[in-house]
Parts: sequence; structure tokens; C-alpha cells
Amino acid sequence: MVKKNLLYAQSGGVTPVINATACGLIETARKNKDKLGKVYAGKDGIIGILNEELIDTGKESKADIAALRHTPGGAFGSCRFKLKGIDENRAQYERLIEVFKAHDIGYFFYNGGGDSADTAYKVSQIGKTLGFPVQCIGVPKTIDNDLPITDNSPGFGSVAKYVAVSILEASLDVESMASSSTKVFVLEVMGRHAGWIAAAGGLAQRKKGDPPHLILFPEIPLDEKAMLAKVDQAVKKYGYCSIVVSEGVRDKKGKFLADSGRRDAFGHAQLGGVAPVVAGMITDALGYKNHWAVSDYLQRSARHIASKNDVEQAYAMGKAAVDLALQGKSGVMPVVVRTSDQPYRWKVGEADIARVANREKMMPRKYISADGFGITAAARRYLEPLIIGEDYPPYDRHGLPKYVHLKNLLVPRKLPRFEL
Amino acid sequence: MVKKNLLYAQSGGVTPVINATACGLIETARKNKDKLGKVYAGKDGIIGILNEELIDTGKESKADIAALRHTPGGAFGSCRFKLKGIDENRAQYERLIEVFKAHDIGYFFYNGGGDSADTAYKVSQIGKTLGFPVQCIGVPKTIDNDLPITDNSPGFGSVAKYVAVSILEASLDVESMASSSTKVFVLEVMGRHAGWIAAAGGLAQRKKGDPPHLILFPEIPLDEKAMLAKVDQAVKKYGYCSIVVSEGVRDKKGKFLADSGRRDAFGHAQLGGVAPVVAGMITDALGYKNHWAVSDYLQRSARHIASKNDVEQAYAMGKAAVDLALQGKSGVMPVVVRTSDQPYRWKVGEADIARVANREKMMPRKYISADGFGITAAARRYLEPLIIGEDYPPYDRHGLPKYVHLKNLLVPRKLPRFEL
Repeated sequence: MVKKNLLYAQSGGVTPVINATACGLIETARKNKDKLGKVYAGKDGIIGILNEELIDTGKESKADIAALRHTPGGAFGSCRFKLKGIDENRAQYERLIEVFKAHDIGYFFYNGGGDSADTAYKVSQIGKTLGFPVQCIGVPKTIDNDLPITDNSPGFGSVAKYVAVSILEASLDVESMASSSTKVFVLEVMGRHAGWIAAAGGLAQRKKGDPPHLILFPEIPLDEKAMLAKVDQAVKKYGYCSIVVSEGVRDKKGKFLADSGRRDAFGHAQLGGVAPVVAGMITDALGYKNHWAVSDYLQRSARHIASKNDVEQAYAMGKAAVDLALQGKSGVMPVVVRTSDQPYRWKVGEADIARVANREKMMPRKYISADGFGITAAARRYLEPLIIGEDYPPYDRHGLPKYVHLKNLLVPRKLPRFEL
Repeated sequence: MVKKNLLYAQSGGVTPVINATACGLIETARKNKDKLGKVYAGKDGIIGILNEELIDTGKESKADIAALRHTPGGAFGSCRFKLKGIDENRAQYERLIEVFKAHDIGYFFYNGGGDSADTAYKVSQIGKTLGFPVQCIGVPKTIDNDLPITDNSPGFGSVAKYVAVSILEASLDVESMASSSTKVFVLEVMGRHAGWIAAAGGLAQRKKGDPPHLILFPEIPLDEKAMLAKVDQAVKKYGYCSIVVSEGVRDKKGKFLADSGRRDAFGHAQLGGVAPVVAGMITDALGYKNHWAVSDYLQRSARHIASKNDVEQAYAMGKAAVDLALQGKSGVMPVVVRTSDQPYRWKVGEADIARVANREKMMPRKYISADGFGITAAARRYLEPLIIGEDYPPYDRHGLPKYVHLKNLLVPRKLPRFEL
């Protein structure tokens, strides 16, 4: 049997556990050296593949690869770069196949969200057309939890845990000072179109009156008057009001409350700073002193408070991707299948990447309470297992987590340069 | 021997470990029941004492008091309320003594920063004048680390660890995406006049080129041109630039970059939102895409990532305060005395609260690098031991830390109401 090499790439925004997926993939490939060749990784994702900058993960020690399991960020680099349609830019697809050929790639693993599934799908198609079939496997990842088919997206559970723990802690702080100081606290979290991350804040609420008292979802156009009434009610009843707000909240006209006007490389609006907008609205109308926090990348990299279930699933997706490759599969993606809520049980399933591509899984309306400012029991049943368990990184003698920086040595080039 | 009761109050901004101090104090008092009476706590700090709202901590179970050690926020409530000078408002001081008399208080423990030490000092003086001497013990606490005499302030070490871990993690995220996305990341941290917390971010830097690449201190007026040059250099050399900025950064004219115009009850400017100001400056001048985070109360309540040394010192201060009371002391405060940097060793010392009152310990200039954008080896030597060790709270089956909410039952009133 001729052994083909593997090529792995990380895509889009990284997560606290995307490296755990890389770890699962590389460790599983190393266990199957009789059937599989080398594991390469695209430097900075697919851009590195187009540029023929391939990292040889075989140069990394066993210990360093194992340390990926507890290291946040993207160990090989990631990118925001979406391949154009095949008709628009066939040259990019041909280049990919050329690089695959030059380095004897038989398996392409693309670890990302919906956009990446789309790319993986297109690559699998073009490979066949050009007579160089490569097994293309999508590997799920996104903190936004907006991938369809899979029960949840690896990365989301850890962000959810960070948000739930953070709003719980900050609310204890606010509660203890509220009689003479800050009465309203606003925490801004990510989630451009889907309120999954904001909803996770609701897990801090174990009984009536617990914080957060309001959650502002991107799915619910902001009714300012209703919000102000609910804030005032919380302050009067509990002494303070704790709020989680999604960066994607819009007004009734559909405009983002915090639209900076900037766009990212995928053409999505670059958001940020809705917390001060909401906090200002409240103080202007009700006079309560406010504080606000914007967790931004902190939430997306907080490996120190990762969810154990999330880490295990992230690792399992990497392992399953290699298992699917070994089974000869292509155009597929391993997914998480939930078999029981309580006790929580899950297994690895398999999805067709064409069905995953370019589809956002919105949060069901039944997960948002009738008044639009909280989560329901159904949401809690779904979300809670995802934040269960702790999986702390080891710490060094300086008091910091022992995160690994790989050597990331490049494979010698074989091709002429390519203009992106 | 007639047993007198103890009265404990938390003051000012809370910390991730102020309840560990309460735990040390109450547990030590409980061990000395032969000599000491009940332990009361002011509801919401000194305001509760003026209002004769005293919590009977004796109604709390042993397990709940033990859980204070790992619970953030202020378990009995705190307040921002500074007593006026004795000449300006003698009635407030007389009221305190009246409440002390009515509830047979022999020991007053005021757990706070410099303002609180000032109050404790004044109360000890007025008690003598009014013929009702109470042993007044200051107990150190402040995330700002700006108390004099004590080597460090309990609360600071945990915030320092949060900031160092957070900037390390977020920088891994930025680094992995920088080739095609965000190149500049700005994390805003607290510290109104002293840059201790911002300096702690520098602990993430283990070797040249490591993040954070810039720290903006309140001690150094911002030289915008120099900052932009350094940011540009970092992006060109390392691919990205990671920045920690103190909320208290001022421009060359001495104006806070983020002065909201609001003032707190102590008359201090209420700051917030310098990160977007700095990020905007950079993007406008250099064009790099930025992201920014404002950690605000998250940093001050992040018990989940507390420093073990800090928790131990916070507990020890509470214990030592009772020990000092048992020794008949008044007008004193237990402090942390460092006896060795490496290996780090410390012991409990004692300071005169009159010497602690109303003095801010600024960061020595020798802790800031010559260019004003980083920390020195001396700073590292001082700061590093304070973030060493982890001390995780226990978690429940829902994936959340098991933080305690006390019953906080009030002692029956004996006095008429008092108008604040």
C-alpha cells in the first residue's frame, strides 16, 4: 500500500480547543504510521497551502503534540480567507491540487466553520474533476455553535463556560457593592448572528432572581422601553441588574447597535462595543451607575477555564477525522451526536459536508423566554452539559499555564511561487 | 473575663479574595470562643453599621464560612462611603460608637484600602475621646496594590494572575490569525493612579518578542508618536502587537484618555473605555485591524483563576487581625512582609494604621523600562511570586463554581434610626 500524506489546516477564528482537535488528529495519524504518511499543516491555514508553506508536524516532539490539547490559539496559524467560487477563481483551486500533487497529499482536513466546510466540499469536487482525487474531510470548530447537523460545535462549550462563570463572578461583585455604587453591569459577548454564546450566560442563573437578569440576543430586535422597564424592575427587586449582551444585537430597524462600519475579509460587519452603548442607554434613562466589560478575544482563548466535555469532543473530532480517512471516506465531517441529556451522553457521528456548508444554525425561538430577555428550560437542558467538567492546563513555576509554541518547520518548496 | 463582640466590615471595591480574609477572621474568632464574643458584620460595610444593620455571622454554618475562602465578591456587602472629617460630621462618628456600645462591640475590623485605614484610625481616636475605647484593626485589601508598608495588598495577586493569563491567552489567539486578520489587540485593565495591574500583564512575557509588546502605564504620560512607532515595529517584527493599557493612562496634558466625566462617591473620576480609544488611534494611524477587550469587573471577581499565594495571604490577614485583637492591639493593621524573593518567602507583620491611611504606594520608576512601555527585571522579581500557585474553587454538577451565598441574618435593632 502506497502511503499518502495528510494535510491539516485551521480556518477562521480560533477557539480555546481547536488545538485539541489538531492533537487528536496528529496523535491518531501517528498511531497509524503503517497506513498513513506524514502529517503536514498549512501555515496560517489555507493561505499557507496556496503559498506552499507546509509545516512538517513530524518535526514536533510527542510531548509538544500532546501539549496542543491544553494550548489555546491556533498552533499552526489560521486565516480569514474564503476561496472564491470555482468559476470566479479556478486558479486558486488548481493551485491547491498542484500543491497536493507536489507533496503527495492524499487527505485534506479542513478544521473550521461553515465557510470552511464549503471550501472543503469544493476542493473535493475539483480534485475529482482534475483527476487528482483527494479525500477531503471537514472537521468542525466554531465558538459560535452555528454549524448545522452536529449537536454542538467544539469550541463553543468552553466559551460558554467562560461566559457563565464570568457573569456569575462579576454579578457577585456588583451585588456586594450595589447599595452605594454600581447597580448595572453589562457583559458583552461574541455571536454575530446567533445568540448561543449570550444564552450560555443564562446558565449562571440557578434560581429566580439570580443573575443575569437580562440577556440581549441578536435574534430579538431590541425593545429599548421593555429593556429599561426590566432593568429598573431588577434593580428595585434585587438591588442590582446584571446583563449579558451579544455583540450582534440590533435595533428594531435591523441596524447593529455597535456597527463600526468596518468589514472583515469574509465581508461580515466587524462589531464591538455594544456594551457601552447599552450601559449608556440605561444610565441616561434611569440614572443608575453602570460598569461594562467587553470580553472579546479573552472569551475565545480562555483555555484556563475550558469545559472538559468540550476538550474531549474537540479531541474526538480530530481522531474521528483520521478514522474517516482510514475508512476511505471523503466529503464528510465527523459530528457530535447527543444520545441523552441527563445523564449527558454523546457519540461521534458523520455528516455530508455539502449539507454543512454555508448554513448557519440559528438558536430555536423556544430557547428564548417569552419576554425575549432570558433562556428557557429547554435551552438549559441543551446548553448545560456543554460546560460541565474542568480541564485545567498545567502551570509552570512562574504561575503561568504551560502553553506550547511549536517549531513549525516548513517542508522544502517544490513549486514556483503563486500570486494570491 | 467579659467577652466583647467583634464587628467586621468590608470597604470599597471588592476583590476575588476579600472573602478569604473574612473566612480567616471568622474561623480564627470561632477558635477563640473562650476569649471572644460574637462576630458581627456590617451589612454593606460601614453604611450598615451606621444604619445598625449588623449581620450575625454566628448563624452561618461552618461549611458556609469555609466556602467564603473560595467565593468572590463581598459576602456581607461593601460600600463606597467615606466618613467625613470628625469636625465636619461628628454625628457619624458618635453614631458608630453608639452602635458599638449597644451591641457590646470591643473589636472593630475594617477591611479595605487607604481610605478605610483612615476611617479605622479616626474611629479608634474618637472612641477614646468619647470614653468608649474599641480596638480598631485595619485589614488590608485592594486590587490596586497601592497600600503602603505591606509588601503587597491581598487581592492584587489574583487580579495580576488573571491579567497575565488573559493577555497570554488572547495573544496566542491574535498571533495565530494576524497574517490575514487582527494585528493589534488591546486589553484594558484597572489601576486608576498606579500601574501595578498593568505591570502584571508583563509577566506573560518570558522572552524577547513575547507579548505583551507594550504596556501603557498611568505613571507615564502617553507619547502617542512613540507608541505608534513601537506598535508598528512589533507588527513588522512579530506579525502582531499585543498591548495592556491601564484605565488611568493620561495624555501629555494630564487628562485621562477615557475620562467619562462621572465621579464616584469618593470623588474619584469614574474611568472606562480607554482600550477603544487606544485601538482607534492605532488603526487610524497605521491601518492595522484591531480588537480590544475591557475586563472591568471580570478581573476583580475572577476567583476561578486566583493566585494561591494571594488566597493564602488574604486568609492569613484575617487570622492575624484576630490575633492582634487578642494581643490587645488597636490602631494597627497586619501586613505582608517579604523575606525572600526566590524562593519566595513571606511572614505576617504589623503596621500602624495612621501610617497606612490616605497614602498611595506608587509603582517605583525602576519597575518601568527606560522607554516607558514595559517592565524591568526588578518589577518581575517583585511581581512574579504574587501570581504563583492555583487555588481552584470546587465546581458543582452544573459546571459552575460552588460559590456561597450567606443567609446574612440581621441582629435585632436596639437603637432609633439614624439619618445618613
